[in-house]
Amino acid sequence: MLTELSPLTRKLSAFVALSDADVATLTRFDLRRRSFTPGHQMIHEGQSGSSAFVLAKGWAFSYKLLPDGERQIVGFHLPGDFLGLRSVLFRTSDHSIEAITRIEASEVLTSDILKSFAQAPRLATAVLWAASRDEAMVVEHLVNLGCRSAEERVAHCLLELGARLAHLELGDRTGYDCPLTQYHLADALGLSAVHVNRVLRHLREERLVTFQKGRVCFENFRRLTELAQFDEAYLDQDGPLLR
Amino acid sequence: MLTELSPLTRKLSAFVALSDADVATLTRFDLRRRSFTPGHQMIHEGQSGSSAFVLAKGWAFSYKLLPDGERQIVGFHLPGDFLGLRSVLFRTSDHSIEAITRIEASEVLTSDILKSFAQAPRLATAVLWAASRDEAMVVEHLVNLGCRSAEERVAHCLLELGARLAHLELGDRTGYDCPLTQYHLADALGLSAVHVNRVLRHLREERLVTFQKGRVCFENFRRLTELAQFDEAYLDQDGPLLR
Repeated sequence: MLTELSPLTRKLSAFVALSDADVATLTRFDLRRRSFTPGHQMIHEGQSGSSAFVLAKGWAFSYKLLPDGERQIVGFHLPGDFLGLRSVLFRTSDHSIEAITRIEASEVLTSDILKSFAQAPRLATAVLWAASRDEAMVVEHLVNLGCRSAEERVAHCLLELGARLAHLELGDRTGYDCPLTQYHLADALGLSAVHVNRVLRHLREERLVTFQKGRVCFENFRRLTELAQFDEAYLDQDGPLLR
Repeated sequence: MLTELSPLTRKLSAFVALSDADVATLTRFDLRRRSFTPGHQMIHEGQSGSSAFVLAKGWAFSYKLLPDGERQIVGFHLPGDFLGLRSVLFRTSDHSIEAITRIEASEVLTSDILKSFAQAPRLATAVLWAASRDEAMVVEHLVNLGCRSAEERVAHCLLELGARLAHLELGDRTGYDCPLTQYHLADALGLSAVHVNRVLRHLREERLVTFQKGRVCFENFRRLTELAQFDEAYLDQDGPLLR
């Protein structure tokens, strides 16, 4: 039954035991489903009056572009993620979002979101939880940049994506398909692409993890987890708090 | 009238035109007011079953401690901020929070929060907005660490605090009282305290800003803003979206 539900519904179910009415309200978020090609700009920084999207299939990423052209990738988005929720709440988007692969996403209007919260307050709490989880990931990325070595950063990033994909049944402890380039990793981790390449070679030589031909293969999951000090507690998947 | 309201009520009013019933619900968040001494640990990383707090007076900061003892400060908290909201939603706190000055804060139980959202869905939306604003700040800190020079980071941090304090009427374009040490700035900005000290001296010599004896004085607000590429749009203070 749960597998027939949308990725967003399944994600929020991890936090709130959703009623049939809640699920019915959520399915309305999936009415305006559209496809986008790789590289499509879903949301532009500085854009106002934008919609949010719920990602149903594929990968996207959010970023900020600095005046000197440098790009900081804030996070990678997977099925079930809200894209641009902050843009809707803030009226002017403070970041951009771009499709990495071909994606399917449903446009959600601000009015839909506010109406659904009024009708189903448990949903608002669930979305607040999802937003908090997104914030927890940004905090981990901040710790990556502030305190971790290049090797730890790359390992942490690959493990976090693996943990998120495992919850979507798109990966496991052996690995996952990954459409990212070394440029994506570099701009997310505050490293140069050359540096990322060197780190990946070293992690491969150490038989910890390989990232080749669009697939991440964990060779030694336990040692990689130790190296990255990766503890997935911040992804909070212990089962519904609100029953 | 608005000045008699709690800092949290005033903050949320920036996003949602609160009804009398909403305000009455919010005042219940302020029933368990307590004082804490500087250095008091409000919330410990890994702690479960913790409460959230609403900060009424004083400064606090949230941080993560790495196994090697390094500390990454995630953010500074000012009156009106929720402390540990994520800890409540996540059951296990993924970060620690410590008082910088003597503070006053009201303990808010998880049940209070969930009950108030059910009774006043507009409040849930307002709290989601406040959480999104917190996330926007963490994103800016990520950009600081990933893309900005030491000077730009320090300038950006001092300007962001100034903008937030101005909304609380605790500062203006001339400056503000600031209880932070150079160690706080260093651990927030991924720099050493020596480096922060050197940057502050240089900013002072350039007559942009001074930070001495617990006060930040903006000497040239416009040029400092340009240097830091500071655009306070992400603090989103354009007036209520939800009326």
